[in-house]
Formats: sequence, structure tokens, C-alpha cells
Amino acid sequence: MLWDYEQPVAIRFGNGRVREIKDVAADMGLTEGGLLVTSDHFVHDGTAARLVAESDGALTEVFADFSPNPDVTEVDAAAAIIRAKHLKFVVAMGGGSAMDLAKAAASIALTDDSIADYHGTGKPMPLGHLPLIAVPTTAGTGSEVTCVSVLTNRALGKKAPIVSDGFFPSVAIIDPELTYSVPPHVTASCGMDVLSQAIEGYWSKGHQPICDACAIHAAPLVFKYLPIAVADPTNAEARQKMCEASVIAGLAFTLPKTTSSHACSFPLTNIHGIPHGEACGLTLDWFARVNADAQHGRVQEFAQAIGFADVDAMADAIHDLKVKVGLRTGLKDLQLTDAQIDDLVRISRHPNLYNNPVEITDDMLRDMYEHLAATE
Amino acid sequence: MLWDYEQPVAIRFGNGRVREIKDVAADMGLTEGGLLVTSDHFVHDGTAARLVAESDGALTEVFADFSPNPDVTEVDAAAAIIRAKHLKFVVAMGGGSAMDLAKAAASIALTDDSIADYHGTGKPMPLGHLPLIAVPTTAGTGSEVTCVSVLTNRALGKKAPIVSDGFFPSVAIIDPELTYSVPPHVTASCGMDVLSQAIEGYWSKGHQPICDACAIHAAPLVFKYLPIAVADPTNAEARQKMCEASVIAGLAFTLPKTTSSHACSFPLTNIHGIPHGEACGLTLDWFARVNADAQHGRVQEFAQAIGFADVDAMADAIHDLKVKVGLRTGLKDLQLTDAQIDDLVRISRHPNLYNNPVEITDDMLRDMYEHLAATE
Ligand SMILES: NC(=O)c1ccc[n+]([C@@H]2O[C@H](COP(=O)([O-])OP(=O)(O)OC[C@H]3O[C@@H](n4cnc5c(N)ncnc54)[C@H](O)[C@@H]3O)[C@@H](O)[C@H]2O)c1
Ligand SMILES: NC(=O)c1ccc[n+]([C@@H]2O[C@H](COP(=O)([O-])OP(=O)(O)OC[C@H]3O[C@@H](n4cnc5c(N)ncnc54)[C@H](O)[C@@H]3O)[C@@H](O)[C@H]2O)c1
Ligand SMILES: [Zn+2]
Ligand SMILES: [Zn+2]
Repeated sequence: MLWDYEQPVAIRFGNGRVREIKDVAADMGLTEGGLLVTSDHFVHDGTAARLVAESDGALTEVFADFSPNPDVTEVDAAAAIIRAKHLKFVVAMGGGSAMDLAKAAASIALTDDSIADYHGTGKPMPLGHLPLIAVPTTAGTGSEVTCVSVLTNRALGKKAPIVSDGFFPSVAIIDPELTYSVPPHVTASCGMDVLSQAIEGYWSKGHQPICDACAIHAAPLVFKYLPIAVADPTNAEARQKMCEASVIAGLAFTLPKTTSSHACSFPLTNIHGIPHGEACGLTLDWFARVNADAQHGRVQEFAQAIGFADVDAMADAIHDLKVKVGLRTGLKDLQLTDAQIDDLVRISRHPNLYNNPVEITDDMLRDMYEHLAATE
Repeated sequence: MLWDYEQPVAIRFGNGRVREIKDVAADMGLTEGGLLVTSDHFVHDGTAARLVAESDGALTEVFADFSPNPDVTEVDAAAAIIRAKHLKFVVAMGGGSAMDLAKAAASIALTDDSIADYHGTGKPMPLGHLPLIAVPTTAGTGSEVTCVSVLTNRALGKKAPIVSDGFFPSVAIIDPELTYSVPPHVTASCGMDVLSQAIEGYWSKGHQPICDACAIHAAPLVFKYLPIAVADPTNAEARQKMCEASVIAGLAFTLPKTTSSHACSFPLTNIHGIPHGEACGLTLDWFARVNADAQHGRVQEFAQAIGFADVDAMADAIHDLKVKVGLRTGLKDLQLTDAQIDDLVRISRHPNLYNNPVEITDDMLRDMYEHLAATE
């Protein structure tokens, strides 16, 4: 077996460590010209202004003008500010949307291009980029340690990841206290993203042992702590363990890549507006049963390593977890037409689908979506 | 809980990948002026000459003039060659001894100092260094992914690690086929090093979750595959799994650091000539029983995660493994005097001892060494 591993992101984990942004930047020689990319929430609650004030002049601009599942035009707008103000580094403090926007903006700003030229076109991203410090505020995407930026082109109805070695943040600062304000439904959806990323990283055709170890560490934390974090948002232990699961699941999938559930999540989010993690979780137990006996028993070994009798029991537990944290288990309320199901089948044929250990045919996808369409 | 993680070494793993040295160097812009540090074994069997010949001129010098547990004078000799010939990078192909010598030489060569100035003196190593590609040929130290160089000063009777961020190799190429020629007793000793490093990395006071996951991955591979690799040196699966365990145990301990068994190994190697891994293994089951209930049950959780009923059963299995692979379980043949036991107790009080989760007193050490002295 041949495998490669690289993990160029330095991780700083712990309550209160958001206050280290300034020091981390200074250690990299960055004492001015910093752009803080953050979501509305942190503008409204004053955190953004406080960080700028406390930065001793290192952070000079704030950009918050973007939506969840950020659009290519929003990346271009952030890049335009970087160019116009000759900014020198970027701090992204937010969920996957803030971090993914910042990764793309920190790279494209060094060119005169639009990020749209590189989105779903196969054109490789130039590797040059401004230094990026990533500070996640959801326990979800793991984007703080990945070289992936998931963007949307609403004009073309397209959501797709761009992968580039230039997208790795220099440093990830993970401060669990930043996640206390995440609303329960976002917590639940993001947590399901963590679980999907761990499990899919493990069974991906590109699996490898260090990422396996990370997946086995991360997945059981979600089963144990996600219901607590949803029910009791300021439970320090649950938030900390979910942040730990999130960053370690990020390590688990960034090299092997995600598979079937992520492939199917793109049209579910794009067309039907289902949040990313909830969309991944919707099909995760179904694909677990499909993949149960793949890879000479490796998937069964995973289920057992994380404490289940077998994959079937793990799939049941995924279903139960969705119920417990208030996520969808079906699509019945959408009253999907046959044509809509055809679209879902067609658009699920995303490159990630080919990382799945079992070949997924259109018939299998149609079966799955028909079953989901009939399920509450 | 606060923790940090960095893993700046890119890993390339798989049979035959030693042939990628040239390409890996070229990717770093290194096409000439390379020093190959390797052990006698690879000079005698022609591997060194073949790598130089196949390197298209990238490798221009070979240095093999060093002993296991390399001496500070040998580091200085390698550095003198680097300076005299204005060499530009270093490839270390060998066991921990070759890699540790190369790390230190690649750094000290950029100064006019002797490495002895930095060995056990607390003086911090300068961070500048030539690029280093590490190619382990034993499944043991994990030095290919660590920032540690363990050196000996025979004139002063001192063996100690130097730790420096400048010691991280740029790339580690792990080719299990290189380990087929390791003799059974070296295989056994190196394998015990892997197990000690995984277990000590886990229970170290500096433990943290990513390293925990790596330790839990690596340790069971040693119990399963070490006896096979010792009995059947060209067993491809066993060699590959031991190499996987070795590099992943390297990740498991490099940040948390090793603890009691490594502290005690230094005098056992230095004074009594017991190979490093064998020396670590000699006390590992004893310290496992000492630490069994430390850290609110974490050590028990480790034993259970890797398939044992409890720490006691794991300690028994460590003992049985030593017997099975032909390693020492005692020191009776050395007929240690009381004064020699006093020396062992005194010199075991190495900084690593303070990373142990349970405080180790001199009385505890004396008990242990007296027990070992009476055991076959
Ligand atoms: N780059 C990757 O590796 C990767 C991996 C998986 C998913 N993604 C992408 O990331 C995006 C999803 O990211 P996400 O799940 O983190 O959601 P998000 O970033 O879209 O945030 C969801 C909502 O929660 C708000 N929010 C975030 N943190 C908050 C906090 N601490 N308190 C209160 N509100 C907060 C945001 O403002 C937003 O309204 C999707 O576009 C997805 O495709 C990227
Ligand atoms: N840097 C670290 O992180 C770290 C960790 C643990 C131990 N160490 C140190 O590493 C050293 C031990 O390294 P080691 O256990 O790898 O042993 P080693 O490098 O001393 O090698 C042992 C013997 O095996 C020979 N050898 C090596 N590879 C061979 C092969 N493929 N075929 C045939 N012979 C081969 C060597 O020439 C030597 O004679 C000690 O000094 C120890 O303290 C360093
Ligand atoms: Zn995801
Ligand atoms: Zn060791």
C-alpha cells in the first residue's frame, strides 16, 4: 500500500485562545494590514470590533458581506478589498463559509482573475496566497485544516469544492468558547458534517492509516457529545469535545477526500436549501449499509472500533442521532416530483461519488432518493 | 484542555519509494550537492553507491563513519564535510542513529560550533539548517518525523536528546523493503521502541488527542506484527505494518515526549550497552502497572481500546512479547552490584522521567532495578 501524508497547518486548541490571534500573526512577522473575514453574528455581538481593537493595529479591515455557502462574487469582492488596500494577511473567524471564502480570496487576490475561472472548471489554482489564520466558530467543516474551499456560483446553479495546496491555513486557532452561541439546529447540522467527514474519510478509496486513526478518534465523540451540545449549548465539555472531533475529522478527510454522502449533499443544499451537514447526514446511514462489507471488512472494523456490533448497528445509531438532534431523516415534506428526483440523481454524480468504495449506479441513487422522498 | 499540534514533515510511504529520493529533492529545487548519510550496511551491500549513481548528480558525497548511538564527534565530522564541500542538502538513510546524526549535522554545519556545545547543556540550537530527507531503514525510532536527535558524548559518558524545530526533516520516505535486511534481534529491539514510544506518548503529561489517536493506531500493530517480522524477516505484510506503526508512533510521541521507560533506557544503554528499544522495553510493563490508574482512567481506556481487558493484561502481554521476540526481561546476567544499581537510579532521573503521569521516586526506581537485577 502506498500513501502520502502532509499536514502543514499548525493547530492551537483551547478555550480563550482566540486572544492569541495577534501573537500568532506577530510570530509570522505580520503586524499590520490584516483583513478579518467574519460572519454577521460576530459583527453584531461586538466580537469583531473587539478583536480589531485588541490587535494593536494588525487587523485593519473587516469583511462580513457574504452568505452561508458563499458565492464566487462574494470571494471576488473580498479579493478586491485586499488588492485595493494592499492587505498582507487574512484572519477568517467563522464557520466553513467564512473560512472557505477567506481561503479563496487570500489566493485570488494575488491575481487579476475572478475566482469563477477556477470554480468547477478544472483550471488549477495558482499556489501563491496571503498567509491565512483560520478560527472556526462552528464544530463542523474542519476547513481550518483542509486545503478545500467549497464555493457556490448561484448564477450557474453550481456548488463545488476547489482544492489547492495554497488553501492550507498557516495556523488554525480553535477556541471552543466561540461555538457556545451557535444555535441548536446549526450545531446539529455541523455535527453531522463532522460525523460524515470522519466516516467518509475512512471508507474513501483514498484512505490511509493516519487519517484512519483520526476518523476512529473523531466519530465516537460525535455520537456521545452532539446531543449534549444541541440540548445544552454552553456545556463546556460537549462544545470542547465537538471542536476536537471537528478538527480531527478535518485531518481524517482532507487527504482521502469525502465520498458519496458529500456528493449527494451538493444538490440537496443547492436546489433544496438543506444545510450542508444535515444534507450529508441524510444519506450517511444509507451509504453505510451499502458500504458495510466493502474493503475486505474494513468498514465493519471501523464500526467495531468505535463501539458498535457491526455497520448495521452503526447505521441505526446514525438514524437515531438524527432524530435525537432534530435533523431530517427524509424529504417527504418537499413532495418531490419524478423530475426533481431525476435531477438529484443526475447532479449527485459529482467527482466525490467515485471515491466511494462501492460503485454507486444511477439505479441505486434513484432507489435511495425515492425512499427518502417517501420518508418523513 | 489546551493543546498544540504541528507536523511539518511530508510523508511518502510504500514499497520501492526509496527510488523517489531524487524526485523529492528535485521538487525542493535540490539537484546537486547532496550528502548521503548512511550506515555501513548500505555501503557494503551496494545500496549507497546505487542511489548515488541513480541520483543524476544530486548526491555527491557519502558519510558512513559513525556508530550506533552516534557520538558528538561523529556529528562534527559530518558537519566538517558539509562545510568543506559546500554541500546543500542531506539525505539520511538508516536507523535512528543515521537520522539523528544527520539532523544534528545539517544544523550545526551552518555554524562554526561543535554540536557538543548544545548537547545536554540547555543551550538552544540555532534554527537554521540544510534541507533533510529522512529514509528510515529500521521500524523503530520514528526519527523521520520527529524534531529530536539523540546523541552520545562518550568522553563525558552522557547520552541525551537535543530537541529543535530545525531538526524536522522536510520529507520522510518510508520504504518497508529497506527493512527486510534488519537482523532479528535489531528488529525486535526497534519494535519494542515503537511500542514504548506509542504507549509513553499516550500517557505522557503532555498528551493530546491527535497523538492519542496515533498511539492507539500504532500499539496494536506491534503486538500483532512484531513476532512475525522477527521470525520471518522478509514477510512483506509484517514489515509494512511495523513501518506503519513506527512512523505513526513517531507522530504519537514527538509532541507529548516520552516518559519513564525512555528516561531509564539512557543509563541502560550507556553503561550496560543494551540497545535502545530493548532498554525501553525492559521497564515498560513495570511502568504500565505503576501508571495503570493514572489520569482518571485514561491508561485503562488505552489498554481497552487496543483490545486488552485492562492495563494488567496489557502489561502481561508486553512481558510475553519480549519473551516471544527474544528480548531481555531482566538483568540477572549482569550481576549488578549495589553501587551499579545506585548509578542506574541516579542517572534515570532524566527530564523525561518528569513527563510520567505518576511521580516516580528514587525508592520506586530502586525497587524496580532490584527486581530486574534478580530476574533472568
Ligand atoms: N472547506 C472544507 O473543507 C469544507 C468541508 C465541509 C463543508 N464545507 C462548506 O462549509 C460551509 C458550511 O459551513 P458551516 O457548516 O460551518 O456553516 P456556515 O459557516 O455557513 O455558518 C452557518 C450559520 O451559522 C452562523 N454562525 C457561525 N458561527 C456562529 C457562532 N459561533 N455563533 C452564532 N452563529 C454562528 C453563520 O453566520 C451562518 O449563518 C458550506 O459551504 C460547506 O459546503 C467546507
Ligand atoms: N530521534 C528520535 O526521535 C529517536 C527516537 C528513539 C530513539 N532514537 C535513537 O536512535 C538510535 C537507535 O536507532 P535504531 O534503533 O534505528 O538503531 P541504529 O540506527 O543504531 O541501527 C542499529 C543497527 O542496525 C543496522 N541497520 C540499520 N538498518 C539496517 C538494515 N535495513 N539492514 C541491516 N542493518 C541495518 C545499523 O547499521 C546498526 O548497526 C538510538 O541512538 C536511539 O537513542 C532516536
Ligand atoms: Zn462536509
Ligand atoms: Zn525510543
